[in-house]
Parts: sequence; C-alpha cells; structure tokens
Amino acid sequence: MKDIKELYLKYKEIKSINLIARVRNNRQGKAVSFLVLNDGTTIKDVQVVYKSDVKGYEQATQSRVGSIIEIKGKVILTPGKQQEFEIQAEEIILLDQAIEEYPLQKKEHSPEFLREISHLRARTKTFQSIFKIRSVAAFAIHKFFQEKNYIYVNTPIITGNDAEGAGESFTVTTKKDGNYEDDFFGKKASLTVSGQLHGESYAQAFKNIYTFGPTFRAENSHTSKHAAEFWMIEPEMAFCDLKENLEVIESLIKYTINYIFETAKEELEFCNENLETGLIDKLNNVRKSNFVVSKYEEVIEVLKQAVKNGHKFEESNIEFGLDLATEHERYICEVVNKCPTFVTNYPKEIKAFYMKQDENNKTVAAADLLVPGIGELVGGSQREDSFDKIIKRCKEMGIEPEDLSWYNELRNFGYYKSSGFGLGFERLIMYVTGASNIRDVISFPRTPKNLLF
Amino acid sequence: MKDIKELYLKYKEIKSINLIARVRNNRQGKAVSFLVLNDGTTIKDVQVVYKSDVKGYEQATQSRVGSIIEIKGKVILTPGKQQEFEIQAEEIILLDQAIEEYPLQKKEHSPEFLREISHLRARTKTFQSIFKIRSVAAFAIHKFFQEKNYIYVNTPIITGNDAEGAGESFTVTTKKDGNYEDDFFGKKASLTVSGQLHGESYAQAFKNIYTFGPTFRAENSHTSKHAAEFWMIEPEMAFCDLKENLEVIESLIKYTINYIFETAKEELEFCNENLETGLIDKLNNVRKSNFVVSKYEEVIEVLKQAVKNGHKFEESNIEFGLDLATEHERYICEVVNKCPTFVTNYPKEIKAFYMKQDENNKTVAAADLLVPGIGELVGGSQREDSFDKIIKRCKEMGIEPEDLSWYNELRNFGYYKSSGFGLGFERLIMYVTGASNIRDVISFPRTPKNLLF
Repeated sequence: MKDIKELYLKYKEIKSINLIARVRNNRQGKAVSFLVLNDGTTIKDVQVVYKSDVKGYEQATQSRVGSIIEIKGKVILTPGKQQEFEIQAEEIILLDQAIEEYPLQKKEHSPEFLREISHLRARTKTFQSIFKIRSVAAFAIHKFFQEKNYIYVNTPIITGNDAEGAGESFTVTTKKDGNYEDDFFGKKASLTVSGQLHGESYAQAFKNIYTFGPTFRAENSHTSKHAAEFWMIEPEMAFCDLKENLEVIESLIKYTINYIFETAKEELEFCNENLETGLIDKLNNVRKSNFVVSKYEEVIEVLKQAVKNGHKFEESNIEFGLDLATEHERYICEVVNKCPTFVTNYPKEIKAFYMKQDENNKTVAAADLLVPGIGELVGGSQREDSFDKIIKRCKEMGIEPEDLSWYNELRNFGYYKSSGFGLGFERLIMYVTGASNIRDVISFPRTPKNLLF
Repeated sequence: MKDIKELYLKYKEIKSINLIARVRNNRQGKAVSFLVLNDGTTIKDVQVVYKSDVKGYEQATQSRVGSIIEIKGKVILTPGKQQEFEIQAEEIILLDQAIEEYPLQKKEHSPEFLREISHLRARTKTFQSIFKIRSVAAFAIHKFFQEKNYIYVNTPIITGNDAEGAGESFTVTTKKDGNYEDDFFGKKASLTVSGQLHGESYAQAFKNIYTFGPTFRAENSHTSKHAAEFWMIEPEMAFCDLKENLEVIESLIKYTINYIFETAKEELEFCNENLETGLIDKLNNVRKSNFVVSKYEEVIEVLKQAVKNGHKFEESNIEFGLDLATEHERYICEVVNKCPTFVTNYPKEIKAFYMKQDENNKTVAAADLLVPGIGELVGGSQREDSFDKIIKRCKEMGIEPEDLSWYNELRNFGYYKSSGFGLGFERLIMYVTGASNIRDVISFPRTPKNLLF
C-alpha cells in the first residue's frame, strides 16, 4: 500500500498500513487523540486514532499542522460513521516538524490570501481539486487527439511574427536599449499569441495536428478572466470544412468532460459543493446534449426580438455587424437554446484575416462555441484557401502580407480546405471546476504588476 | 476509409476507395501513368495507376508535385511487387494545383535548405518520421505519469526568479529602455530556464508531479545540440530518495521507447535506414538492459585507469572534481558498461545548490543518466531538506537566499525527502530518431541570429 489513494481502493482487504503523509489536523482528547492526514494522492483524508500508549506518543502530540509523519497501524472499518474506516495507530514517527507559523492552519483562507502563497495553496482541498482536474483534463485532450492520429506539434513560443494582431505582445530580448539588430536573434522577437499559423503549416504535412502550449498577451486587463500567460489548444485539420470542424469541437468537449467524470470524481464533487452549486448538473447537461448550430444572422434576429420583448442588454443596439458580448452569448445559449450553441458565419469585419470568406462576400466561415455559464469557450473557422483573397484581406485589415509571406504562400503549394479552432485551456478549467477567477486555475498566475515566485 | 493509414490497415477487405491526398510524384508512361500519393497520416505512400481512359485524365496528367487530388478507384492486390497493393483509378479530380516552383521536388534536399523552409519540410518522409515520433513520445511521457497518478503542472514560463543560475536568460518586457519598474510586471521578468523549483512546491502538495513545457537559454552557442527554446520534462516526487528516483527514470525511458516501437514502427524503421544505422538495435539494447549505477568516485578511478592504459581523452587530467565531459560519459556507458549508466554522488562544487549534501560533506545525492551514443540524457537529484544547509549552500554559490525565499522556506513547512530529474525532450528525440542536429527535431528552431517564421 503505497499511498492514501490506494488505501481508499483497498482498505477492506488491508489489515495493517505504513503511511507517510502530511498532518492536516491534530486534536488531542483525554482518552483518545486524532490525526487527520493527507498525502496529496487524493483529496480524501485519513483519520488516525491514537492513545497515550502508542509508540511515539510524545512525537505524535507535538506534530503540528503541515508536518510530515510516518504512521504504522491497523485499518479499522467504521461502518455508519462519517468515514468508512480509520487507522488505529501502533507507531507514530514525526519525520519533519512544520514551524508554528505554518500559513495553512485549519481556518478558512480568502482566495486573495492564498494567491500570495501560490507555492503552498495546492495543499488545500480547493486547489488540490482544481489542479487535479486541470491535470486530467490536459491528459484527456492529448488522449482524444492521439487516439485519432493527430500529431502533437510544439509550435514556437518565441516568434518573429508580430502580425496576427491578436493584441499586445511581449518582447523577448537580451538588451536594455531596444536595439534589436544587435539582439540575440538579430531582430525583434516576441512571445507567441497563438500557435495557429505555425500549426496550419504542419496540418498540410500531417493532415491532422494539434498544439497545446503556453501563449501570452501583454494586455493591461485587470479582470477575473484575463492572464498574461495561459495555455491554448489549437487543432488544425487539412481537407476539413467548417461542418467537420464543429464535430471535432463537440466531440473534444464531451470527451474531456467524460474523462474528468471518470478520473476525478471526488474532486468534481468537491467543486460542486464548494465552488459552483449545480456544477455537475451543468456538465452532465453539456455532455449529454446535442450542440445547436445557429447562423450569426439568425442570432441577431433573435436578439432583436428579445429587445423588442423587453429583455435588457447593456448593449441593446443590436444590428448585423455587432461583435457579440458575453451577455448576448449567454442569452443565446442559456435562455434561447438552453444548451451549448455554435454561432457561425460572422461578419468578416469582426473576424480575423485568415478566415474563409463566404460567397456572399459579407460573412466568413467562422464558428464560436457558446456554453451556458460562460459564453464563448471555443473560436474556430475554416481558413481562406485562395492566395489572392488572403492577400487582399491582409491589406484591408492593415497587415503587411510580406510579414506573413510564409503563411500565405501555403495556398500556392497544394491546399484544399483547412479548418481549426482555439480552446483556451484555463477558460475550460474554470468552466469544469466552477472557479470564478483565472488566477485560481493557474499554478503561478501572471497578471499586470503581479510576478510573484 | 478515411485516410491512407486506415487504407493500409484494411486494403485486403476494401474494394473501392475515395481518397484526398497530396501528389508526391506523377510519372506519365505511354500505356499507363503513375501517381504517388501521401496524405500525412502515415509515411507510407499509395501508388495510383491511371490510363488515358480514366475520368479526369487531363487533370491527372497536369497534377504537379505538391498538388492535392481526389481519387476514386479500386484496390488491386499486387503480391510479389514492392508494394502490397495499388489503386486503379476510375476518376481523378485535381482539387488544388501546386505552383511549378514548389520547393519539395522529387530530388534530395540538404538539411540546411530544409531548415529554411521549416513550414514545408514536415512534408518529407524524414521530418514526417521525426515529428511523428516526437508526438507519440510526448504522449508516452504523459501516459506514463498519468497512469501513476502524477499531476501535470504547468509551471510558469514568465518568471521573476533569475537566481537558479542555469545560464543566461531572456528578458520579457514591453519596454525598450530597460526601466523594469514601469514595465508590465513592475519588475524584471525572464523566460524560465527550468520549471523545477516551482514544480517542487507542487510535489509538496500532490506527492508526485511532472512538468512538460518549454524552457529557454539565451546562450550564444552555435552547436548542433543547443537551441534557445526547447522542451523539458521535470518530475518531482515527495517522500522519495535518490534510489527511487533512479527507478522512475529507468522506467520512464524504457516505457517511452517501448511506446514508440508500438505506435511508430514504420517511422522508426525509416530513421533506422536513413538517419542512424543501428538505431533500432541501440534502442532495443536500452529497453532490455538493466541500467548500471556507479558512483562518481568509482567512475573517476575507471577513467584514470583508462588513461594509464593508453586511452586518449581530450581532457586527460582526471581528478576528483572533474566535470565529466561527453567523451568521458560516453566512454563509461559505451566502452566500460556497454549500457545506460547512472553516475551518482558528484562533488558538490560542480552541482546545483539545491542538491542534498551527502554525510561526507564532499558529494551530493545527484545522479546523471549516461546513455550510449549521446552521453548525459537525464540529470536528477534528491533535494536538500535542511533549511539551514540550503541557505548556507546558496550563499557559498553566490545566490542571494532572499531571491528564492519562497523556495527555500518549503523546508520549514513540513518536508521529508524530495527527488526529481530533468529530461531534455529534444535530446531524447535526437536519441530515439538518430537526428544529429537539434534544429531538425524542433518544428521551428530558435538559435542565435535565427528567427525565421
């Protein structure tokens, strides 16, 4: 029996145990005393009962919260009690004593305080749950794509492309004077805002690829949804149109949620009880529903009608061309469709230069996935396949085609349909855990004026 | 039948096919013509035979190398021929014509030329093989750890720690004047050189964790083994000593190699034939051998003896304290042990501040894994668990303990043994593919004065 996770699987067969774990609580009574232990392998604790005749009693009574102890003892089944079993201690060894000022005492802590001790907060049940779910969700995503023969591509983090225009980017330099010609790379280097363009070139080689790596935005946003550093999943499929793209998105989301239910059930239940009431119902609804597809144009009509019927939006000036805000997105998927909803064929003016123009010359083959409780979770599109059209679109949107010539010229080297999407990993983890602040789903979050650790 | 990979699995049962793929070759004969197609789902090509009576004959003859075509036809078994089957075309549709100047014509290309077209080179069999193996190796590593309940932690890429001293680091900034107080984070920010220290704090919460992410070095090295951006795997295990650490390393390497044999057999065979003769034998040797463990002190004696016996090293001044070079490492694992070898208990002066000091006060509980053909593949250690000792070691090595107080203080909050290691992912991929230049195992490599794409 190597850890508490295994103990919970086998406690009915096991007679005696030998465990190393951290003290979560140590409560001395007159006749008996209690240690609550956790070793990080599951959020479930183990209760140890010890009496004054136990070997190492002195050490046991002195063991502070946070300390590491070794315990030898017997498994006692306790049917009817809160926990199914407890450990009757035979020997307790204090392996390492925590200092008295250990910051994670039994009392409740605010999320703000815990962010200041990001190197310790994962020892709490809340963050143990969140980061366990983050870990298994990451694996579910890899598993989903690998089973379908997608190639995992590590697109570059440092990039010479500054052109995609997805917001402010960080400069990477070894200089202090902004003289980039003398710099490490001999030119201006930035942190990537997206691996998509590089990924697309690999889809032309492998048919189906995905990226899963960090991306960066130097936006001075002080919201609960923005971080300067976050992870993205960006799959790209050659010979694939928008419709098939939507099928991949829907399967991926359902697969990932199913996998979390299978592998992190206790952690999900903890989140359901402590972070978001109804979380499990919400996720069950998502994984069992058929996602609805609505055209942007239809969505605008529905929103107009809602305003007519007296619904109040902060932005109630609903016209074709409106860049949907979260309030509109949530209304569509929560009130109208009551399930995850793809909105497709957005006006080209509000979407990126690389999206395939529809024949009407007004809209593009884009699709955003809106989910109840959050709004946009995924953004994707079929890519423009015409070299002439993409060059024209670059110019219209103020992008120098020369800066992305390697990307645009893929259209000249044999190119037939390519589609893909971007899934913000932290947004997904917020969605599946109920965490309301992105700082609480990132191990060491990076935000403006905040670079602890 | 959705792609060529599936076609190779099912060609014996399938009568007719409908495929979209890229033209690798198009050769017109008098009576019959031949198209060689690949769709990226396997390195194996499909040969299509077509005659002048095929529907779309005109388009077929015009299809240039690189073009995308759709083909409808019959599967014809060709036992005894080079390929087990071919396609007899019934209809050929040229979906997208490549330009005449398509850079990947049939002829051989130099690795240097192909690096200049990194957005296209994955279409060659060499790079298809390398990046397929890279992808499945990445997944094998995730799978290995997830099956053992390790938590995948995304440690930060942007860091305020500049103190580990693992070499030069890049600055991350939004300024041009080096005034970091006014900068995005209000202080100097760097790209991480290692996720280890952050990962260690998470091991204290979860017991077993691993990182797998990009790391950066601004070293002006122009060798075939150095890149400015590369990926590292850094597991960390609490309640784990050096011996158990070695067991994890050995299992991980063997598991990953086994998984590559299972899932990328053709690609491995291609590498064996084209990149490194004897590659498969070498890997078979590794996965079947028991890794040897030798103390540094013993290794020094063996090397001294080798010099006495006339073996020539570039550095032949062998004394305790020598930082082993690749020539010494390879001699130990290739000539002496003839199998992967852990060298342990190095002098503390040549190792990092965080390694646990042995009782002799001379050496530390470090272990490097040396493998035939490359030298060091993995570096690991048990960590110093004494707060006083680690502070003293920081000072001796010129590190300001204050700069890493959050890391050092983990020793005060309940700490009992912690061990871990770092595996350079690109070094592993070079080892398992036989690629001799790190630029050829990274999708878009970043090296001094080189930032294409």
